Amino acid sequence: MNAELIAVGTEIILGDIQNTHAQFLSQELAALGINVFYHTAVGDNDGRFSTILQTALSRSDLIFLTGGLGPTTDDITKETACALMEIPCTLDEEIAGRLRAFFTRLNRPMTENNLKQAMVPDGSIVLQNDWGTAPGFILEKDGKTVVLLPGPPRELRPMFTHRVKPYLEAKQQQPIFSKNVRVFGIGESALEPMITDLVESTDPTVALYAKDGEVLVRVTAKAPNRQIAEEKVDGMIALLQTRLGNAIYGIDKSSMQQVLVELLVEHGKTIATAESCTGGMLAAKITEIAGASSIFEMGEITYANRIKAKQLGVLNTTLAQHGAVSEQTACEMARGLANSSNADFAVSITGIAGPDGGTEEKPVGTVYIAVCHQNQVWCERYQLGRYQTERQYVRTLSCLNAMNMVRLTLLDPDHMKKYTL
Amino acid sequence: MNAELIAVGTEIILGDIQNTHAQFLSQELAALGINVFYHTAVGDNDGRFSTILQTALSRSDLIFLTGGLGPTTDDITKETACALMEIPCTLDEEIAGRLRAFFTRLNRPMTENNLKQAMVPDGSIVLQNDWGTAPGFILEKDGKTVVLLPGPPRELRPMFTHRVKPYLEAKQQQPIFSKNVRVFGIGESALEPMITDLVESTDPTVALYAKDGEVLVRVTAKAPNRQIAEEKVDGMIALLQTRLGNAIYGIDKSSMQQVLVELLVEHGKTIATAESCTGGMLAAKITEIAGASSIFEMGEITYANRIKAKQLGVLNTTLAQHGAVSEQTACEMARGLANSSNADFAVSITGIAGPDGGTEEKPVGTVYIAVCHQNQVWCERYQLGRYQTERQYVRTLSCLNAMNMVRLTLLDPDHMKKYTL
Repeated sequence: MNAELIAVGTEIILGDIQNTHAQFLSQELAALGINVFYHTAVGDNDGRFSTILQTALSRSDLIFLTGGLGPTTDDITKETACALMEIPCTLDEEIAGRLRAFFTRLNRPMTENNLKQAMVPDGSIVLQNDWGTAPGFILEKDGKTVVLLPGPPRELRPMFTHRVKPYLEAKQQQPIFSKNVRVFGIGESALEPMITDLVESTDPTVALYAKDGEVLVRVTAKAPNRQIAEEKVDGMIALLQTRLGNAIYGIDKSSMQQVLVELLVEHGKTIATAESCTGGMLAAKITEIAGASSIFEMGEITYANRIKAKQLGVLNTTLAQHGAVSEQTACEMARGLANSSNADFAVSITGIAGPDGGTEEKPVGTVYIAVCHQNQVWCERYQLGRYQTERQYVRTLSCLNAMNMVRLTLLDPDHMKKYTL
Repeated sequence: MNAELIAVGTEIILGDIQNTHAQFLSQELAALGINVFYHTAVGDNDGRFSTILQTALSRSDLIFLTGGLGPTTDDITKETACALMEIPCTLDEEIAGRLRAFFTRLNRPMTENNLKQAMVPDGSIVLQNDWGTAPGFILEKDGKTVVLLPGPPRELRPMFTHRVKPYLEAKQQQPIFSKNVRVFGIGESALEPMITDLVESTDPTVALYAKDGEVLVRVTAKAPNRQIAEEKVDGMIALLQTRLGNAIYGIDKSSMQQVLVELLVEHGKTIATAESCTGGMLAAKITEIAGASSIFEMGEITYANRIKAKQLGVLNTTLAQHGAVSEQTACEMARGLANSSNADFAVSITGIAGPDGGTEEKPVGTVYIAVCHQNQVWCERYQLGRYQTERQYVRTLSCLNAMNMVRLTLLDPDHMKKYTL
């Protein structure tokens, strides 16, 4: 089954908003084993959209139309698609009633144009929208399937997951099942030779995708039923774990911060942060996870040397002799924070994020990270960032490495190199 | 002149990467007065890409092809476009020399396939790439213009700005000139009636775009030369400033943090932050700006009540009587921070970012922000976020409002409501 995606919206082709649906739907469809061959975006223009849809119907089996289902006159997607496919529409009283109830709940009058959203293409599958007003539809005609979804991401995403995905899964004879294995600290080119034989496997398949500072390994299997597919995938993941150990930081997890917060919650441990070049970004990442309040103790952002001394007790002689960006300073920051907080893990970051401040010995991207746990300090020096101007890249990678060091320490305290000042 | 954008890359249609060029180029072209009618993405497939390009040549005057200019065999953009347009290619010794020098500098051997990048379409304009290896090209044939740009954003963006934009500007008889006026603290629906007459102007035009927590007002003029166009735009901006005053936080600025850091640097003032629900995000935003070290004094992330008391001196009685999310706590946080730091501005944030923790009286999204300056404290209560689960939205808006309050205080200290505990 070949699919393509058409986003309808003048705000997309003007560049006012990013067409994020293309990536989301492509990933979701790839995971279902459905090939996507084209993404198109077109404005709210009847003629141009109609031509695009005609081309799509001539070359693809499954077509997603996103956006343009709302109540205003420039919402043309349903009307134009139905006109082209020669499908009449009829007012659905149930949907109309739901719309009226929605406006009553908001205590706002419903204008008549809203009833446009209650017009249902004859013979279509209605996708109830519990996240907004405009319902979605699935049209099936002449062997083609056209799926219409509302534009706002907070409506489209749950609509896909809860309405469209079950429909597509039910159509498949061979369910596809995949899991994402996330590997940190080994680059793609170093990782590949470690698992060459597994990457060559055809059932399940193992695919590598390099991301910022990490590699995503997607393991995918097809089987007569989901259980068998899942068993195949899990078998392959067990092999990957044997090879890669703790470099695998999560399976089907969305981020390093999610993994770290869950680990800390599970072990009943707390964390505190002391940041220089990342300026609060590490703490912000950790506290982005709902529920972080139970594990996040406190954070210090100590940009100036004076503040490093005052808030964390870094010795002025250390700063003078070794500099603010040094192993010694990173270790004293972590130790000072461990002393002043009650946290089980105190982590510090000091480095040169750029674009200025680099030297021959310590170029931009030089970052020291230290973790203090049970009175021991483990420190690492990193050289991050490939381009001088990538200040945000250096900061992001610093945060990921800091979280990874805490994760490794939590999983295996012996892993820490014993460092004593 | 009608334009369209074609992104070539299997990683895009698989959903592995976001096609960010579509938005960037659309915005840039809109600012030049060039209409973009279609965005398409297609995989590294000779046949499918060729068909797409053929359609594009039949309906658009200016076509951008992004990606697929690299050295590997799946980089097909230049070869396929030239085959379709019947333009032969010739090896360019100067580009070949530059490639060899590039690899010598990196101390890496250059494999022969890299020379693919030195093949130049006959009669094309070569766009030298100072940010990577693959040059770009402009092909002109039969009244159509095809622009080929490399895929990596850190190459494409400067290539557009420094190579393609001057070319397009030179082609225009009536230069288009626009400036972006950024308005914070007035919603789109409240803003529009304040400037209805200006929005109706046709020369220059005034367009509103709602963004997270702010409105972007784009003022655009066409004129026989750039100076006249700029004068028209500046005249309109002066009118906007009369109406909106300090609600305009920047003109052609990229973010609130950029504006705030520049203002603090300009006035020689420093800032310190105390964050609860934003957990370091405010400090991270400020320090994302290169050069922030000269104005950022320190930051405290005080999630737990105990830490609010210990690090900032918030009274336990205040926490017990009014709660951590209260005007009183926000003010004591700001005042405590002002006392312990030397910063000119001490700003605090305490709130309920969700998804849990809301009450009837203080639902999710309730945020108190206080600014302490010259021993006076100004505090505001905000109700942020439209959906319970939008934790990151509540946090982001909290940071923007906090920076805006510091900005307003800096511009006009009398603006502060005098608050005394």
